[in-house]
Amino acid sequence: MENGAENKWGFEDKQEHKAAPAVTVKTSLASIIDSVNKNDPRPVVPLGYGDPTAFPCFRTAVEAEDAIVDAVRSGKFNCYATNSGIPPARRAIADYLSRDLPYKLSADDVYVTLGCKQAVEVILSVLARPGANVLLPRPGWPYYEGIAQRKQVEVRHFDLLPERNWEVDLDAVEALADKNTAAMVIINPGNPCGNVFTYHHLQEIAEMARKLRVMVVADEVYGHLTFGSIPYTPMGLFGSIVPVITLGSISKRWLVPGWRFGWLVTNDPNGIFQKSGIIDSIKDCLSIYSDIPTFIQGAIPQILEKTKEDFFCKLIDTLRESAEICYNGIKEIPCMSCPNKPEGSMVTMVKLNPWLLEDINDDIEFALKLAKEESVIVTPGIYVGLKNWLRIAFCAEPSALKDGLGRMKAFCQRHTKKH
Amino acid sequence: MENGAENKWGFEDKQEHKAAPAVTVKTSLASIIDSVNKNDPRPVVPLGYGDPTAFPCFRTAVEAEDAIVDAVRSGKFNCYATNSGIPPARRAIADYLSRDLPYKLSADDVYVTLGCKQAVEVILSVLARPGANVLLPRPGWPYYEGIAQRKQVEVRHFDLLPERNWEVDLDAVEALADKNTAAMVIINPGNPCGNVFTYHHLQEIAEMARKLRVMVVADEVYGHLTFGSIPYTPMGLFGSIVPVITLGSISKRWLVPGWRFGWLVTNDPNGIFQKSGIIDSIKDCLSIYSDIPTFIQGAIPQILEKTKEDFFCKLIDTLRESAEICYNGIKEIPCMSCPNKPEGSMVTMVKLNPWLLEDINDDIEFALKLAKEESVIVTPGIYVGLKNWLRIAFCAEPSALKDGLGRMKAFCQRHTKKH
Repeated sequence: MENGAENKWGFEDKQEHKAAPAVTVKTSLASIIDSVNKNDPRPVVPLGYGDPTAFPCFRTAVEAEDAIVDAVRSGKFNCYATNSGIPPARRAIADYLSRDLPYKLSADDVYVTLGCKQAVEVILSVLARPGANVLLPRPGWPYYEGIAQRKQVEVRHFDLLPERNWEVDLDAVEALADKNTAAMVIINPGNPCGNVFTYHHLQEIAEMARKLRVMVVADEVYGHLTFGSIPYTPMGLFGSIVPVITLGSISKRWLVPGWRFGWLVTNDPNGIFQKSGIIDSIKDCLSIYSDIPTFIQGAIPQILEKTKEDFFCKLIDTLRESAEICYNGIKEIPCMSCPNKPEGSMVTMVKLNPWLLEDINDDIEFALKLAKEESVIVTPGIYVGLKNWLRIAFCAEPSALKDGLGRMKAFCQRHTKKH
Repeated sequence: MENGAENKWGFEDKQEHKAAPAVTVKTSLASIIDSVNKNDPRPVVPLGYGDPTAFPCFRTAVEAEDAIVDAVRSGKFNCYATNSGIPPARRAIADYLSRDLPYKLSADDVYVTLGCKQAVEVILSVLARPGANVLLPRPGWPYYEGIAQRKQVEVRHFDLLPERNWEVDLDAVEALADKNTAAMVIINPGNPCGNVFTYHHLQEIAEMARKLRVMVVADEVYGHLTFGSIPYTPMGLFGSIVPVITLGSISKRWLVPGWRFGWLVTNDPNGIFQKSGIIDSIKDCLSIYSDIPTFIQGAIPQILEKTKEDFFCKLIDTLRESAEICYNGIKEIPCMSCPNKPEGSMVTMVKLNPWLLEDINDDIEFALKLAKEESVIVTPGIYVGLKNWLRIAFCAEPSALKDGLGRMKAFCQRHTKKH
């Protein structure tokens, strides 16, 4: 091929994409996973991201598999779908969520998405306008920051307070908001903290958001996965105080993150989204995306209606046990502490004291060396907004979790400063 | 709720999305479908878009269904996938496409996408930069124009020439291109024309693109669906003349548009995409999207390798018969003509002579009244770039197709000018 400047290809000036930062925990974790010593005969213990599917104890419900099989075998769902989702899927999600609400959602309140990630992309696209900002929790889920940056939405962080069981610092929210603030995001049950917001705290959030005139985007991808003293409360319960966008999916409760089925739901009995054009914007945004596979949509009514209570109960029991093992295991490791026992989701935040360790200066170095020496993967807290913390996904087989914690303990003991 | 200006919600100034035009044939067709008279006892004959799945003769291969069922039942594909696709799926697609190429594609050349639509979105995102333009065929598939507009890529149209069996007007291509031209798009087998490019013409396209220093984006979503005298030739065959991005999917050849599985493949034995940063840009772009459902990816090797030749042969026979019925049926309708018998894809372009008709001024009015009076859906040519033509999808059961053509004939006869 010729090379001189006059022979440049018409696409060769494209550069601006390349500096864009990684936006997912998965991408950020790649270098840590790469550090694992390939000669270590022990199995890798993956406590990095919230994907429990590697472990047999976290197999999905047979009813969910049956639903997909039935949908495919029926031959009825090979056609193109409709942009917002096929009506039976939308109706089933509305019914499923309405069980926990004082009002009934309609199918029209529901938009199906490719997992919760696409729901985040949709809502941030809808909110993007020159000068707009959104309030995000710190620590949080970095996908929000990544998408906000690409959509040129300014991000402002409010803290979650470990000393108050990771509740929202509402004074900070009030101080951050201005007339360009379009939304505040909460994640409940908590990723990455493993906390659960009380009814009372959610009501406080709703009232603050109403005072500030910002909608609440409630990421409930871990909805119903609570196993402590605080029951799960959907934010939609406060939809008449403040308009709420609920994001959810079957990924976690049904243990199928790879099925990529999620939803964006408007909880807005006062019709504020309709009046302000948000609904039209959501529809418009979805009209350009490729639809969600029709047969997965076709399986949704059966998945939501037929999965037995027994499956959910077992999952909660397993997660409770794992959270307990994780919390107790961390207690025995001298250089780290977990301020609150996780009561929800599949992840928790652990404080690291790197100054107690020799030759380890921060959370990233900790995670890299831990992977290299012990084949245990954890997420450096900086990736989710808190330097010198670690995010640990406890959704592992109890034996693997104990093994991983044991290796972490040995690692810390080996690296503890001697004087 | 309060209403005064001081009480406006922080998301209420969002307006710019709303004026965005519909970007898909499906969206544009909505008003035509709405015109159908609900009291017409006859079934609707849907010749509007290329979705054959409504008809029993277009049922997918049992091997494809089996592959999905096996993937789901295995429990191995509930996990998150990797951004570009899981390696077995990428490898299987590389092998599948390599059968028709003089060189072997590697798994790294393949990126899995949510149908071909997401592949279009990815490549136009990659090419977007201030001032960039792309050359698109007219008539074409309006999704390209819609996405280009949203990505702020300028569109320039070259004509496909009905008198030359819808070949590309290469003189027009040469006149349109400048140093900001990043790519030219071809669709082969042709949507909306039902034509098939010869080996010789594709070579001419490759040589012109090389001369102009623009890559070729080859939309081969209807790949292998040819049933006339011209065999299907993949554009990748000319990858050493000009770098080629091939877009494809299982939607059409396997009759499963709703499964939303496609690919973007680099055909570039000279490594120009790698050197110029296009590969990094593609990866970066895919890193922010939600992945394709893992179990569908898991099923792909089995789908591509196990589907029997018999299934493909039957499909080709059915499409040949449908194309014939369509072409012959159109011949009998006085106000329309089809310049070329369709030899590929599932759609064709028919020229309308509205001046022969009373009270019908153009293709949109024709389609609206046809839907209303005869419950037959066709696409106005203006939606795909040619005013006073119609796009007819002939992927219908022969009996339904004959019925639809018969109603169109009666409609035209009824509306023909009497003097």
